Amino acid sequence: MKKFEEKTITTETIYQGKIIDLQVDEVELPNGKTSKRELIKHPGAVAVIALTPERKIVMVEQYRKALEKSIIEIPAGKLEPGEEPDKTALRELEEETGYGCENLEHLISFYTSPGFADELVHLYIAHDIHPILESKETDEDEFVELIEVTVEEALQLIKEQRIYDAKTAYAVQYLQLQGLVGKE
Amino acid sequence: MKKFEEKTITTETIYQGKIIDLQVDEVELPNGKTSKRELIKHPGAVAVIALTPERKIVMVEQYRKALEKSIIEIPAGKLEPGEEPDKTALRELEEETGYGCENLEHLISFYTSPGFADELVHLYIAHDIHPILESKETDEDEFVELIEVTVEEALQLIKEQRIYDAKTAYAVQYLQLQGLVGKE
Repeated sequence: MKKFEEKTITTETIYQGKIIDLQVDEVELPNGKTSKRELIKHPGAVAVIALTPERKIVMVEQYRKALEKSIIEIPAGKLEPGEEPDKTALRELEEETGYGCENLEHLISFYTSPGFADELVHLYIAHDIHPILESKETDEDEFVELIEVTVEEALQLIKEQRIYDAKTAYAVQYLQLQGLVGKE
Repeated sequence: MKKFEEKTITTETIYQGKIIDLQVDEVELPNGKTSKRELIKHPGAVAVIALTPERKIVMVEQYRKALEKSIIEIPAGKLEPGEEPDKTALRELEEETGYGCENLEHLISFYTSPGFADELVHLYIAHDIHPILESKETDEDEFVELIEVTVEEALQLIKEQRIYDAKTAYAVQYLQLQGLVGKE
């Protein structure tokens, strides 16, 4: 859909980073006026609802430098160049939790911050996860602590604002509303 | 919580914009190694579930330059310096939809992209909205089309991925799970 399209007059790349790029566009608005748009380009990411055989959701507590604190999230990570999202999902699940899965399913995808960023998150459900026997090879930049909660406990943590990561709350609520835990 | 804290070694401000700033930090990881963090600083935002007397949710379709397309979202906008979030919520509701409200309630707040940005969205519910008689003063940069849907229709639009904005899906699912439409 191109309704109310903002036509690009100029594009300036301000920064090209390891994960994000910043670009500033001058645009022509539908009324002919011009404006400036500050845009973050992101490679996209995956997030995984990992269910144990006991139907608990595996979450990770990790430090987020952007927030200067540690928060609780479902396992997630950015796409590497040329990597299919389902491969990223399995890789991040293994790296962050030490669990493997033979039954991975794509549920839905969503934009996290369309006002300034193009980050698209692909949400997966991993059924019947199991510990991988080899010693866990975590990403050298990642330090996480695992937490296992029921969907009811997770919903309560959201309501109490102890989970305040949007993708995690989105995922848990979607799981509950679609009856996906019961279907397992 | 400071678990697994990443201590800042250096901070470099790359860009200071109208809406976002970009900063790159060199950090010391818990294992003593160093890494780089690309961080977007955002002033925070509000999003509003606006309910008509018929208990329909008002959504706006608008062009998002970051995505190069128009998408459906609940009314939302960034905080202005020194502005209280509830004032922002009422201002954005009026500017984007032409509706006013005397019964605004904060529901919950969440981080949209904690991996690289500190954007915190404050979600409000606006009960019994009504058209404001004065001619609508929209933000000169905003061009939107209004859509009114029931919560059931909104949940279906999410499932069909015709709504794929995370904050909107979060809000609609929260509304449904907390029974907030019925309570009105």
